[in-house]
Amino acid sequence: MPAAVATFDDVLAAAARIAPHAHATPVLRSAGLDALAGCSLAFKGEHLQRAGAFKFRGACNAVWSLSAGEAANGVATHSSGNHGAALALAAAGRGIACHVVAPSDAVPGKLAAIAAYGAVVHRCDPGIDAREAACAGVVASTGARLVHPYADPAVIAGQGTAALELLASAGPLDTVVVPVGGGGLAAGTALTLAACAPDCRLVLAEPAGAADAHARLARGERLEAFTPRTVCDGLRATLGEPGHDILRAHGAEVLLVDDADTVAAMRLLWQRLKQVVEPSSAITLAAVLAHPERFAGQRVGLVLTGGNANLDALPWDA
Amino acid sequence: MPAAVATFDDVLAAAARIAPHAHATPVLRSAGLDALAGCSLAFKGEHLQRAGAFKFRGACNAVWSLSAGEAANGVATHSSGNHGAALALAAAGRGIACHVVAPSDAVPGKLAAIAAYGAVVHRCDPGIDAREAACAGVVASTGARLVHPYADPAVIAGQGTAALELLASAGPLDTVVVPVGGGGLAAGTALTLAACAPDCRLVLAEPAGAADAHARLARGERLEAFTPRTVCDGLRATLGEPGHDILRAHGAEVLLVDDADTVAAMRLLWQRLKQVVEPSSAITLAAVLAHPERFAGQRVGLVLTGGNANLDALPWDA
Repeated sequence: MPAAVATFDDVLAAAARIAPHAHATPVLRSAGLDALAGCSLAFKGEHLQRAGAFKFRGACNAVWSLSAGEAANGVATHSSGNHGAALALAAAGRGIACHVVAPSDAVPGKLAAIAAYGAVVHRCDPGIDAREAACAGVVASTGARLVHPYADPAVIAGQGTAALELLASAGPLDTVVVPVGGGGLAAGTALTLAACAPDCRLVLAEPAGAADAHARLARGERLEAFTPRTVCDGLRATLGEPGHDILRAHGAEVLLVDDADTVAAMRLLWQRLKQVVEPSSAITLAAVLAHPERFAGQRVGLVLTGGNANLDALPWDA
Repeated sequence: MPAAVATFDDVLAAAARIAPHAHATPVLRSAGLDALAGCSLAFKGEHLQRAGAFKFRGACNAVWSLSAGEAANGVATHSSGNHGAALALAAAGRGIACHVVAPSDAVPGKLAAIAAYGAVVHRCDPGIDAREAACAGVVASTGARLVHPYADPAVIAGQGTAALELLASAGPLDTVVVPVGGGGLAAGTALTLAACAPDCRLVLAEPAGAADAHARLARGERLEAFTPRTVCDGLRATLGEPGHDILRAHGAEVLLVDDADTVAAMRLLWQRLKQVVEPSSAITLAAVLAHPERFAGQRVGLVLTGGNANLDALPWDA
């Protein structure tokens, strides 16, 4: 079991634990995007991960970290989508039950995936308070083990394996850019960089309409009555305490990104890489393109976090 | 130089000739799509080819097959998009001029790519007659060498290299499905299968609204006053004579596909493979899904021919 605070040793243990279950995703490059950005971009393709997002790493590590007794009544979580689908798939792989509490404004395709992987979906009102209350009720009534989407140390350790693979495939990097929502990926990445690439800068890309990580890490302020407004449905959570503590200690920098820049970057990734990534993934490229002076000439790693974009309405539909 | 009729020896020569310039694209698989189709699907990812389509293979082979004297005044072609972009990129690689005659209804993004690769774009009216007349004019005035998009033997031989790589990566296949428009890819694939996998069936997927290959190969009829109506902008050409002859001799089968099925298959490929493919690519999966009894339990290879989809209007745009 990981300690109450995740460490890089936990990341290494997670890498070994999830290896039989998770994909080692490819690193993708584009000479055209390098020319546009003025730096060398290495995209870690986690949209090609099982269940379509890096979230499978953390969920899988958490599920397989449980003892048989702890796992007996299954697992439960609250999630706007990708963590729920990842936990459902990981639980199915271990043959245990999974309960997912999802807000009513979640992307329909993500909810369908959760159900298709065999989990029980419990709907709740939007907002982190309603989600946590509904999830506590499910845990109490089922005896399922809570796997929090970004505060669980086993989840943070699992997310840190993406950066480990990125460094192993892409070679030395000057900067790594990841999106920040609840902070699980960001914190796991910080653990990996601190151990393996201490001179590599960590930049967190956050929607300008959901800027609580920026408020806390850059200004030391906590936003009151936080209501996220962003196209990045995966980044609407507030920064969790474990992630906050790791990121503050690491000195991670936060760049705010407008949704229009994120959508433009998403179109570029679809056109140039031919990869379907969701808005929460494209925010990393948007951050680089919006601040060229901060990345000029560097070797930059970016995690394409997920590919579960809402494709309900495409231009080709009659 | 290839003979007037392409042979499998020309395919092998093309493979060696284009190797320094073209990508060896990956074969992609999806357990979810296999379950949906009831067969084992091996997708050859030519949307990840240079210039975003398999067309680079044939164009590159044609450009590098020319003697220095033949190449001196550059190359010219007519194309709805992907062949034009491919020829422009191949010509740039050899450092020679390129002229592309494109119809006024071509996808804007494809025309932009042609110009970005350094070719001169000449606009013409839609329809194969107008295209060929305009192209003849350009050839006469510039001295450029015509590289026909699907009737040139060097182009057919180059397209045949995609199936060669597919077999080498995917192993034995029971059926290969490719789209058919002008017939260059279809004919090149037939040459490769006849030599390397004579028991492997070749199925051509054709839009129901542009069914001239079906008329000629299945019924021996030539359509009068052919006006294609299909979302598959890469498949609006009529079957060329060299392709027709090779495909008739090979006994290739044609399946007609409705555009609605193609768009549904394209959404599936975007959702499950996370790959941006254009409608003309998705028609192969649509053909398999529309005729499950013809593919049940088989090992099926499908060429994802290109990824240059029109992304001008996405659901996320404000």
